[in-house]
Amino acid sequence: MFSTKTSPVTVKNINPKVRNCVYGVRGEIVDRAHRLEGILKADPGLHPFKEIVYCNTGNPQSLGQKPITFFGQVLALLENPNLLSKDGIHRLFSSDAITRASELLELIPGRAPGAYSHVQGIKGLREQIVVGITARDGFPAKSEDIFLTDGASAGVHIMMELLISSERDGILCPIPQYPLFSASIALHGGTLVPYYLDESRDWRLDIFDVKKQIESYRDKGICCRAMVVINPGNPTGQVLTEEDQREIVDFCKKEGLVLLADEVYQENVYVKTKKFCSFKKISRSMGYGDSDISLVSFQSASTGYYGYCGRRGGYMEVTGFNTAVRDQIYKLASLSICSNITGQILTTLIMNPPKLGDESYHTFIKEKNLILSSFANCAKKLEDCFNSLEGVSCNKVEGAMYLFPRIHLPNKAIQAAQFELLQPDEFYALKLLDSTGIVVVPGSGFRQESGTWHIRCTLLPQEDQIPSIVSNIKSFHQSFMKEFRD
Amino acid sequence: MFSTKTSPVTVKNINPKVRNCVYGVRGEIVDRAHRLEGILKADPGLHPFKEIVYCNTGNPQSLGQKPITFFGQVLALLENPNLLSKDGIHRLFSSDAITRASELLELIPGRAPGAYSHVQGIKGLREQIVVGITARDGFPAKSEDIFLTDGASAGVHIMMELLISSERDGILCPIPQYPLFSASIALHGGTLVPYYLDESRDWRLDIFDVKKQIESYRDKGICCRAMVVINPGNPTGQVLTEEDQREIVDFCKKEGLVLLADEVYQENVYVKTKKFCSFKKISRSMGYGDSDISLVSFQSASTGYYGYCGRRGGYMEVTGFNTAVRDQIYKLASLSICSNITGQILTTLIMNPPKLGDESYHTFIKEKNLILSSFANCAKKLEDCFNSLEGVSCNKVEGAMYLFPRIHLPNKAIQAAQFELLQPDEFYALKLLDSTGIVVVPGSGFRQESGTWHIRCTLLPQEDQIPSIVSNIKSFHQSFMKEFRD
Repeated sequence: MFSTKTSPVTVKNINPKVRNCVYGVRGEIVDRAHRLEGILKADPGLHPFKEIVYCNTGNPQSLGQKPITFFGQVLALLENPNLLSKDGIHRLFSSDAITRASELLELIPGRAPGAYSHVQGIKGLREQIVVGITARDGFPAKSEDIFLTDGASAGVHIMMELLISSERDGILCPIPQYPLFSASIALHGGTLVPYYLDESRDWRLDIFDVKKQIESYRDKGICCRAMVVINPGNPTGQVLTEEDQREIVDFCKKEGLVLLADEVYQENVYVKTKKFCSFKKISRSMGYGDSDISLVSFQSASTGYYGYCGRRGGYMEVTGFNTAVRDQIYKLASLSICSNITGQILTTLIMNPPKLGDESYHTFIKEKNLILSSFANCAKKLEDCFNSLEGVSCNKVEGAMYLFPRIHLPNKAIQAAQFELLQPDEFYALKLLDSTGIVVVPGSGFRQESGTWHIRCTLLPQEDQIPSIVSNIKSFHQSFMKEFRD
Repeated sequence: MFSTKTSPVTVKNINPKVRNCVYGVRGEIVDRAHRLEGILKADPGLHPFKEIVYCNTGNPQSLGQKPITFFGQVLALLENPNLLSKDGIHRLFSSDAITRASELLELIPGRAPGAYSHVQGIKGLREQIVVGITARDGFPAKSEDIFLTDGASAGVHIMMELLISSERDGILCPIPQYPLFSASIALHGGTLVPYYLDESRDWRLDIFDVKKQIESYRDKGICCRAMVVINPGNPTGQVLTEEDQREIVDFCKKEGLVLLADEVYQENVYVKTKKFCSFKKISRSMGYGDSDISLVSFQSASTGYYGYCGRRGGYMEVTGFNTAVRDQIYKLASLSICSNITGQILTTLIMNPPKLGDESYHTFIKEKNLILSSFANCAKKLEDCFNSLEGVSCNKVEGAMYLFPRIHLPNKAIQAAQFELLQPDEFYALKLLDSTGIVVVPGSGFRQESGTWHIRCTLLPQEDQIPSIVSNIKSFHQSFMKEFRD
C-alpha cells in the first residue's frame, strides 16, 4: 500500500514562482559582509581593513546620518501622546514640534495612534499629504487616491498582484532596474519586458526602443500591461527631462499601459540643470485627466534626505482606474489591515516639512541641506574616483543615491569568475569586499546590457570616510588589474 | 487593421485570484458605519442612536483603551534617542523605561532605530524575544528562527505564498476561521480544506473529522500541505486543551503537514480551567524536535492586553524546515526589506514586559489586569445578554477577543435577506447597525456550518458602555423578532 502522507516541504515542492524569484540586493555578498564583521570583532587584525563599509543599500541612518530633529520629535510625541499634557516638555521639544504633534493627534480617530487605521491610512493624514502633493505639483490631488503603505515596496507588490494573471502579462521595466520590480514580477508569475537605458547617453530612455520591445513581446503572445519608470533612476542615477516624461505619458496613454512611477527619490536631485517633476504633474499639464491615463506614483519615507528606512513609511497615489478596479486595490491593501502608523505620520511629515516662520525651520533647512550637500559631494568624489580607474567609466549622478560605474573587466577576470561559478561583477565585488571591507552590489543584481559589468555603490558614507574609501578603491582596483590584466 | 493597444484595466482582466479573494471583516457593513458616522456628525438627530459603537474589529485603542504606559515611554524614547541624553527626561519617563530604552538602543546596529534592519529583524531584539519565548515555554528557542513581521498577517501571507503552487495544494482551516486565512489561500490560488469546529461541544476540534477531510480532498486530487490552528480561537473564543493540542501535533507529524499556529491571542485567556500552551511547548514536551515537525507560530503586537494594532508588530517562529526552504522564506521576507522598527521594538517589549522590582512593575500589572478584567467582564455580560435572547445561543468565551453567538433566524428573516441579496446574518447585522449604531461582523464572513447564522462581536467596549450596548441589543432583537417571527 502506498503512503498517503504529504511529502515534507522541500525546495522542489514549494511554489515554483517563489523558487524562481531572485532578489539581488541582499544576497551572498551581504551575508559575507556580516560574517566578516563578526570575525573583525573577534579578531581585528585578521583582515587588511578595520571595518565593513556598507555602500550596498540606501540606508543612510545606519551609516551615521542623523535623523531630522523635527521629525524625530513629532514621532516621539505621537508615540506617547501623554507627553503632550506634561509640564516640562518644552525643555525637550521645540514648540512647533509640540504644535504639529497636537494637530496631527486631532486628525487621528480617537486620538489613538496605536489603533488600526482606515485601510488606506488615516484620512486626516492623507488630507495633509494631498496638501503636500498639490503644493509640489500645482495640480489638485485627492485623499481617496492615497494608499499609505509600509515603504514603497508594499504598493509595488499590490500593483503587480493586481495586474499579473500569468506569464502572458508583461511589465515593461527599465534595465538596469531596482530588483524589487523583477522580483515582484517573477513572484507574481508575469514576464519582465525589458527596455534598455542607454549608458552612452547618460542612461536616457529611448521610447522607440520601448515600442519595439512591446511589439516584439506581443509577437511572442505577451501583452504588456504596465510600464515601470524609475525617476530619479535607481541604480542609474539619471533624472528624466520633462520632454522625455511627456513622451512616456503619451506612449502609455496611446498603448493603454498603466504607468507605474517609482518617484521615491524625488527629493534627491544634485544637478542644477535638472529638477524632479512628478508624472502626475506632467500628465495634468498635458491636459490629461483621471480618465485618460492610469498612473500610480510611489513615494517612500526611506529615501529623500530623511532616510527613515526602518520606519517603513510610504504611499502610492492611484489615479485613472475605474471604481471596480479601485475596489480591488483596496481589497489587496486590506489584506495587511493597514500600514504602520509611525510610517503614516512620518510620510505626512516629509510631505509637509517645517515652513518659514516655524521655530524649527532654520534647523530643519540646515540639517536637510547638510545631508543633501554631503550626498552631492560624495557623488562627485566617488564619480571622479571611478572615472580615474583603468577600464572604469561612471556617468554623472544627477539624482537618487547611487553610482553605477561600468567596469570593463579583463578576460582573465571573467574566466576566473566563471571558474568560481560567479558573475564577473560579483567576482569583482567579492574581491573588493575581501580586500577593503567595502560592500557594493554587483550590476548583475539589477540586470544590465549583456556583456557589460557594473557595480552599484551608494553615495551615503559620511564625508570624513570618503578619502579612505577612495584610496582603498583605487589601490584595490590597481592590484585587481595587475592580477587579471589580459 | 486591428488596434494592438492594451485593453484598459477592468475587473474582468485583472488577476482572477485577486477577484476571487474575499476579505469579509472590513466590508460593506463597515463602510456603511463610516457613512452613518459622517451623517451623525452633520445631523445628530437623524438616527435613533448618538454614536457608532465599533464591535467589529479587535482594535481596542480605537475604543478608548489606554496604551500600556511603560511600552509607550520606551517607544517614544527610541523614536528620538536624543532624548536619552537630555536633562529633564526623568520628569517625563520612568527610570526603568529610560534604562530599557538605553539597553535596547545598544542592541540596534549603529544605535539607529530609523535604519533598515536585518531582513528577519534586529538580531539583538530577536535574542530578547527568544528569552521571552524560552521563559514562556520552558524550552529553548533560537533567534535565527524568529522573523519579525508587520503584524501577524505578513507572516501568514509569506507561508501561504511558499506552500501554495496551485489549487491542488490544500490548506486545512478551522471553520469558522479568521478570514485572513481564507483570503490569503484564495489570493495564492490554493484550496481551503475546511474542518468544522463543533459548536455544540464548545467549538472543539475533532481530529477524526480533520482526517476525513484530508482523505476526501485527496480523492479529489488535492494534497493538504498545512493545517491552520487558531488558539485561542478567532472568532470562536475557545482555548484548546493540551490533550487536543497533542493530538493535533501527532496528526500533523504523521500526515507530514506544516502546522501553522495562529497564537496571537496567547495573553487573552479568561477562564481558570484553561491556560495557553504554545504548540512549540507541546511538541517539544512530546519529545519532538526540529527535525520531527514543521511548525510556524504567529504572534502579534495587535492582540493581547496591549492591543497596539496600528504599530504593526509581530513575529513568526519558524521551526522544522531544512536550510534550503528556510532560505526561500528568508527571500520572501526580504521582498519587504524588513518590518517596521517601532513594531520590532514593541514586539520585544510584549515578550519581555516589566518584571518584579522594576519601577514600572506595579503600574504595568495594574494596567494589564485592568484591561484583561475589563475584557473578561465584558465577555460575561455580553454572553449573558446574547443567551437571554430568543433563538440566540452563545458559547462561553474562554479566550481571544470575541463572542460568536449563533442566531436562529426565522424563515421570514431569511426570505427578507434573500430578497435583498444578502446573507441572513448580514441582513441581521445591517439591521442591528441601522437600529443601534452597533457594528458587528456577520458570521458568513468567517464561514460557518451550512444553515447556521452567527455574528462576531468584540468584547472591547469600555465597561461603562456595556449596559447601554446590552440594552440596545436586547430591544433591537425583540423588535427584529417581532417583525420576522414565523
